[in-house]
Order: sequence, then structure tokens, then C-alpha cells
Amino acid sequence: MNTPLEAAPLQRVRVVLVRTSHAGNIGAAARAMKTMGLARLCLVSPRHFPDPQAAAMACGADDVLAAAVVCDDMSSALAGTVFAVGLTARRRELATPFAWVREAAAELAAMACHGEVALVFGNETSGLSNEEAGHCQRLAMIPADPGYSSLNLAAAVQILCYELRLATLDPGAPPAIAGAGEAAAHEDVDRLIGHMERVATASGFLDTAQPRRLMARLRRLYARARLEREEVSILRGLLTAVEKKLDPPRG
Amino acid sequence: MNTPLEAAPLQRVRVVLVRTSHAGNIGAAARAMKTMGLARLCLVSPRHFPDPQAAAMACGADDVLAAAVVCDDMSSALAGTVFAVGLTARRRELATPFAWVREAAAELAAMACHGEVALVFGNETSGLSNEEAGHCQRLAMIPADPGYSSLNLAAAVQILCYELRLATLDPGAPPAIAGAGEAAAHEDVDRLIGHMERVATASGFLDTAQPRRLMARLRRLYARARLEREEVSILRGLLTAVEKKLDPPRG
Repeated sequence: MNTPLEAAPLQRVRVVLVRTSHAGNIGAAARAMKTMGLARLCLVSPRHFPDPQAAAMACGADDVLAAAVVCDDMSSALAGTVFAVGLTARRRELATPFAWVREAAAELAAMACHGEVALVFGNETSGLSNEEAGHCQRLAMIPADPGYSSLNLAAAVQILCYELRLATLDPGAPPAIAGAGEAAAHEDVDRLIGHMERVATASGFLDTAQPRRLMARLRRLYARARLEREEVSILRGLLTAVEKKLDPPRG
Repeated sequence: MNTPLEAAPLQRVRVVLVRTSHAGNIGAAARAMKTMGLARLCLVSPRHFPDPQAAAMACGADDVLAAAVVCDDMSSALAGTVFAVGLTARRRELATPFAWVREAAAELAAMACHGEVALVFGNETSGLSNEEAGHCQRLAMIPADPGYSSLNLAAAVQILCYELRLATLDPGAPPAIAGAGEAAAHEDVDRLIGHMERVATASGFLDTAQPRRLMARLRRLYARARLEREEVSILRGLLTAVEKKLDPPRG
């Protein structure tokens, strides 16, 4: 049995824990990550952090905790990423594609050859909100017993990081979309959605009384499409041209 | 997504925790087992059991805890089994064959078709003693980071039970895009691209001398996104609103 060599792609994976309630789970997740060679932890609005419970559960992975980045929202947490997998325990009325975690890990490992990627875990009780899930290109499910599918958060992190480690160490990992251009970063897509919202409002298309659902639909569509940088440029070029004509400066 | 059928082999697997120090780990292990459809827990000389900490960590898997069997030694714990896999964190000077946990799980699943089998986990700090490991037909290792391979006991149980579940159950086809809307027809996408081209031209964005490449890029993007009908409607609604403002009819 050969000890697998460390692979660089794992260094491009960030684990994002969203609205975690129990600090102990943050520490246990850090430990789970470190055992699999992952080091980059990002916390979106944790209820308690830093916290002695987190430190107690980290158990030797205190370096991961110490380097953890705390963010206010998903957009900050995913800034710079080209692909994000969100874990979910249930089917959703969303257009984001589903996969089992093993397949999702393979996909994430392949995308990590192209840039920064993220694994996203929701709150212990409520999981990811639809809005949070909408930031992910893929939703993944652990094939748990349907009668009792309630994994502890750190246990779920452990399984995902384990699958990811095997996927990145596997020399047979399939290449990502061959011949595809450079993937757009999360913030590029954010700006595109923002730009589209401005044009939609200026054109009178967007009902400002109920703006959320429409833009959320468009966000999911573009997240799912895995935009390339050049495509974002084309769309934003079009939006800029339209914008200039829509509201020409008046003297 | 088809709900995987429960396979009988999982009912022939017992999880054996040997000389566990922390009762909380016993509870967390019970929870990890239950999420993967395993129910039979055997405890060899636990330091504290039963214990409120075990109950607290079981979190809905209290039935597994309640049915747990406490034994004095490995021979009692493994009585009736035809195959046992012991988890170890290090190579040993033993004659017992090693495997990665994925291979070991496949082997255990195959053997479970023949009779009772066991997954054996040692003490949190010292692991399995050589004497205890000697009761196993196979020793398995989790391919952890060699620099920090210290998995929490329940996390290791989670990975093994997860691998075992996958090995015994065909999880079926990857879950379909549940709740996704109706897919747009090819001609709907054609009309969307045509509409977008008109707006791009009217706004002055599209260089009519070289129109082809831009529109081909956008077509590729929307083909890849596998648009739904509702998404096409949203995008076309936006384009229509923009179009009306771009070139208002002049008197």
C-alpha cells in the first residue's frame, strides 16, 4: 500500500460553514478538515466564534481555527471561487443540479485544477436557505438512511473532505470540461447579476415591490451555467450598451 | 431519485467499540451508525456506559444505544461473526493484511452475504492493541493526511459506515434535478438568442461586421445552462422591456 502523495488541489478548497449554531461543531469541522489535508475554513455569520468550545473540539487543528475567516454573507465567502458545492439533506424546488457527494467531490476536485473552489455547509437545523443554495453550482446529498438522515455537521464535513481527498489523490480523476475557457469568479457573477438588476429596473421590467424572486431565478440560472470570464464580459458589455441608451444623461 | 432499498447485509454488521474512553463518542458513533442504516452496537469494556453524555450525543439514535450490547472481551464481541475488519491509524508489525477503508468496506459487504460481520474500532488514544487487532481478518486504514491523521472516533465510524452503506446499497442514479421546471424547447432558446441579437444590435453593442462569434458564444452559454421555460420567459420579458425603451416609435 503506497501512501498517497499530497496533491495541490486540496489547497484551493475552502470549507464554508454558514450560520453555524454550535461552536463545538466548528472546532470538530476544523479537525475533520485537517485530517484530510484541508486547511482553509470560512465562517459566515457564526453564532459564537471564537469560542472555547470550538477550540476544545478542534483538538490539534487549532491552526485551522486560528486561520479561519469570518464573513458576513455568501458573496464575501465565495469571492474568488469558480465552483461551489452546497450540501443539502433534502430535495429542493430549485434548478441547481443535484449529485451524490462522491460525484460532487470528483467534480470539485476537477474544478480545483482551474481555480478556487468551495464546499458549503448550512446551519445545523435549517441547512442552507434557498438564497444561500442559489450561490452554489451544485447541490450534493449524502446517501443517508431516509429514515434518519440527520448527520452531525462535523460528520458531514468529515465525509465530504474524505471524498474530496480521495478524489484529488486519484490520478484517474476526469478532467474538467475540456476546452472550456477560464471560469468566472464568484464576484464577477455577482456584478453581472447586479448589473442585470439595474437594467431590469431602469427598463421598468423589474417590479421593485417584488424584486427578489426574479433576480434569484437569474442567479441560479447563471450559477448553474458555470459562466466563463469571457461570457460575463460579453453579457456585461451588452448590458452597458443597453444602459447607455436607456437613460442617456440629460442636460 | 429512487430511495435506495434497505439491504439485508447492513443488518448483519455489528460495530464494535473497544475500551472507549469518552461516553460522548459512543453516543456520536451511534448517531453516525444510524444515519447509514446500521443498528447493532457492541461495546467492549467501555469506561463509562450507560452515561448521560452518550445519550446527549446520540441525538435521536437512542434506540441504537438502548440496544447496545456490553462485552468483556473481543471473543465475546465477535462471537458468531465470519469476518471482522479492524480500523487502525498506523501500519503494524502484524501478519494481518491491510487495506484502505473503501476496499475493506467492499470486502465486508461481500462477506455480510455469508454471515455476521464486524467493524472494530479501538480506544481513542491507543487504538487497537496487537492482541485485539489479531482477532480481525483485515486491518483497514483511512487515507488521512500523514501529518495529522487523528480522526475523532465517531468521525471514523461515520466514514466506515458511509463506505459500508455505499458498498451494500446501490444508491441508484444520481438524484435528478428535483422540482426543476420544465425544460425549454430548442426553438424557445432559438427565439431567445434571436431576441438578444436584436437588442444587442439596437443598443449598438453588436458589431454587425462581426456578429457571428458573439452570438455563438451566448448560444453555447445558454445551451450549457439547460434553460427552463420560465427562465426563457424572464429573460425575454427583460429583453422586451429594454427593447421598448431603446427604440420608442417616433411620430
